[in-house]
Amino acid sequence: MGTALLTDHYELTMLASALRDGSAQRECVFEVFARRLPKERRFGVVAGTGRLLDALADFRFDADELDFLRSAGAVDADTAAWLKDYRFSGDIDGYPEGELYFPGSPILTVRGTFGEAVLLETLALSILNHDSAIATAAARMVIAASDRPLIEMGSRRTHEEAAVASARAAYLAGFTATSNLEAGRRYGIPTTGTSAHAFTLLHDTEKAAFAGQLAALGVGTTMLVDTYDITAGIRTAIEVAGPSLGAVRIDSGDLGVLAVQARHQLDALGATATRIVVSGDLDEYAIAALAVAPVDAYGAGTAVVTGSGAPTAGMVYKLVEVEGRPVAKRSENKASRGGRKTAVRRYKPTGTAVDEVITAGAATPELGDHDRLLQIPLVRNGIRVPEAPTLLQSRDHLEKALVTIPWEGLSLSAGEPAISVAFAS
Amino acid sequence: MGTALLTDHYELTMLASALRDGSAQRECVFEVFARRLPKERRFGVVAGTGRLLDALADFRFDADELDFLRSAGAVDADTAAWLKDYRFSGDIDGYPEGELYFPGSPILTVRGTFGEAVLLETLALSILNHDSAIATAAARMVIAASDRPLIEMGSRRTHEEAAVASARAAYLAGFTATSNLEAGRRYGIPTTGTSAHAFTLLHDTEKAAFAGQLAALGVGTTMLVDTYDITAGIRTAIEVAGPSLGAVRIDSGDLGVLAVQARHQLDALGATATRIVVSGDLDEYAIAALAVAPVDAYGAGTAVVTGSGAPTAGMVYKLVEVEGRPVAKRSENKASRGGRKTAVRRYKPTGTAVDEVITAGAATPELGDHDRLLQIPLVRNGIRVPEAPTLLQSRDHLEKALVTIPWEGLSLSAGEPAISVAFAS
Repeated sequence: MGTALLTDHYELTMLASALRDGSAQRECVFEVFARRLPKERRFGVVAGTGRLLDALADFRFDADELDFLRSAGAVDADTAAWLKDYRFSGDIDGYPEGELYFPGSPILTVRGTFGEAVLLETLALSILNHDSAIATAAARMVIAASDRPLIEMGSRRTHEEAAVASARAAYLAGFTATSNLEAGRRYGIPTTGTSAHAFTLLHDTEKAAFAGQLAALGVGTTMLVDTYDITAGIRTAIEVAGPSLGAVRIDSGDLGVLAVQARHQLDALGATATRIVVSGDLDEYAIAALAVAPVDAYGAGTAVVTGSGAPTAGMVYKLVEVEGRPVAKRSENKASRGGRKTAVRRYKPTGTAVDEVITAGAATPELGDHDRLLQIPLVRNGIRVPEAPTLLQSRDHLEKALVTIPWEGLSLSAGEPAISVAFAS
Repeated sequence: MGTALLTDHYELTMLASALRDGSAQRECVFEVFARRLPKERRFGVVAGTGRLLDALADFRFDADELDFLRSAGAVDADTAAWLKDYRFSGDIDGYPEGELYFPGSPILTVRGTFGEAVLLETLALSILNHDSAIATAAARMVIAASDRPLIEMGSRRTHEEAAVASARAAYLAGFTATSNLEAGRRYGIPTTGTSAHAFTLLHDTEKAAFAGQLAALGVGTTMLVDTYDITAGIRTAIEVAGPSLGAVRIDSGDLGVLAVQARHQLDALGATATRIVVSGDLDEYAIAALAVAPVDAYGAGTAVVTGSGAPTAGMVYKLVEVEGRPVAKRSENKASRGGRKTAVRRYKPTGTAVDEVITAGAATPELGDHDRLLQIPLVRNGIRVPEAPTLLQSRDHLEKALVTIPWEGLSLSAGEPAISVAFAS
């Protein structure tokens, strides 16, 4: 499917107006940035860039799209003719996926004629705002879980395609697996799952259900033990599978208390290697509260796919330069800084990030020994650069980036951004 | 694209286990319901059913899907062979789109063998949870806006496909148009839009921008007047377009104060019929607060597509009956009522809804003169019934349904559900 109609009507009317008065050919720079981080967030995680580049490759107006645009009154005949051959032919630079961002960070820079570049606004923001919000929330859960694995299982709580993108963003942020099969197929993310309460209820007894699961999935499987009574469920699971059972899952109740009871019971039954997986409305705070409980893995759902209270990242796509001249809206409350920008993150010799410095223009500023340019080339003359990082590389990038921020920046509680962004004049 | 992999891994492992022990053939009833309404909501709006039925038609496992499932270890060879010919062949009944729901309402009832019906859980919940959350939030904005038109313009704040579904849900809830072009093409929803700040910034002067827009879009267009100074912007807009200008849009600042100023200025310039459109972080409360301001239309974005604080409806898909026997999980806090259910809403002779009565079983209870059965047939023997309501009919259904609930149920403030749901024993 083409992606060109995943776009706001006004991008097309602006194009039509600009083609008519000639301004569509002006060379422009658009910038994606966030004015602020969502509440309680001390850092943001850039995510979605890879998906955006995929979608850009399918961003074209075929006969069906053009027919619709004419019938909707969005474009005139001249604009439709111009769109017929449209392919973005400009340049895009941006923070790599898995990079941290802060208020004002120039996350994406799109250069091209106004006509070419304005059309990408909606698609770029849809993808980056969604995926970055999910990845940011997911990264906080990864921090809270410390070294314990996290499984993303929120597909049923969000739009069916947003679920696939959420699984990708959570994996980028450090989750170890997802329940979403399409995310497995499309992005190679490990998928996992065993059974729900329905499987137990289907059978005449819990024991029959466990026996059926064991026969099909083997002793390494995870048995869901809280359909009826958890203590009885664990006893039955070990009776059926023996002490080599892979894991039990508890999906309701006071998970901290129940995990302790389950661990004692499993150990007493000789199932000392049987792991305990907990799930059920877990967010970063609930995960942190379980740090001292004998939990071996977490399943997180709703909170991941809804961004744990911040379902969108609030990034904007702003025109910052026209034919080399900086431009900015001047109304109150939304002051933006015009002009193309270059971003550098500065680090202490120990590797801890100090701040982010934004300079005007495209020239690389003088870099200290521990400074790093934050944008990388993504698209040149409309063609995706071949060196774009893979999802695994981005996941690794974020893992390393989280180590660099000062310890208070990793706190789950509300506070200032982990590092400050300064505009060098 | 097929929709079968928009599914949690464990639906497939449950199927594999149930095929092996023979329980997959048991006749089952699954039910979709919400245990509670999202915070502050006094009613829920059912939305997404039409999209679910569309997706169900594409729910099949082709060679590519089966290859993936085998490689991911989700299914064995026997299960893959069973899936090869899978088409849901059971029955589905449900609340029509645009119907109100309350805690415990049996929103969707799926009947079929366990194997056939369990596979639909994730897809059904993804679609219904997302679309119902958006429609519920949107309906509250429609109530707050009273008779003034609302334009949905939130695409850039949510996943690119969730944006299309959100536009549909908002239109169902009573919004008059959307900015999302794909929603226009796919669902026939009116699309609208004119220009963003970028268009003004692109030009050397605001006047040149307005002249360019006027030339392309005509005098009926909407001019965005807050890029620089609003008073100057309105003066320039009328100077360029004359007093017949269609509308001005204000996207920032104190919209109530600015709308009054703009109205005075427009009237003084003779532009008494020029409408005022306001936008910028509007939710139902901000819209309600503008009731006395001279506003002609609202544009709402982020708050609509994120469900205004409740991005998911929290519906669940539960096995409630196996071969005629009611079943239910018995753990604390999540007590569910087993058995297939029939739902009736009762009304006063004046048309005001009194309550919802749920009876056990499929038999139609005795209906009073003002009682109404809430479920309608949606799928029979795997085939969509031809009488399914259209989007416009569902929109009309909701408009009428909102009139029936007691006035306190329309309040935006937190409170009890607008009507109670009683289980008749």
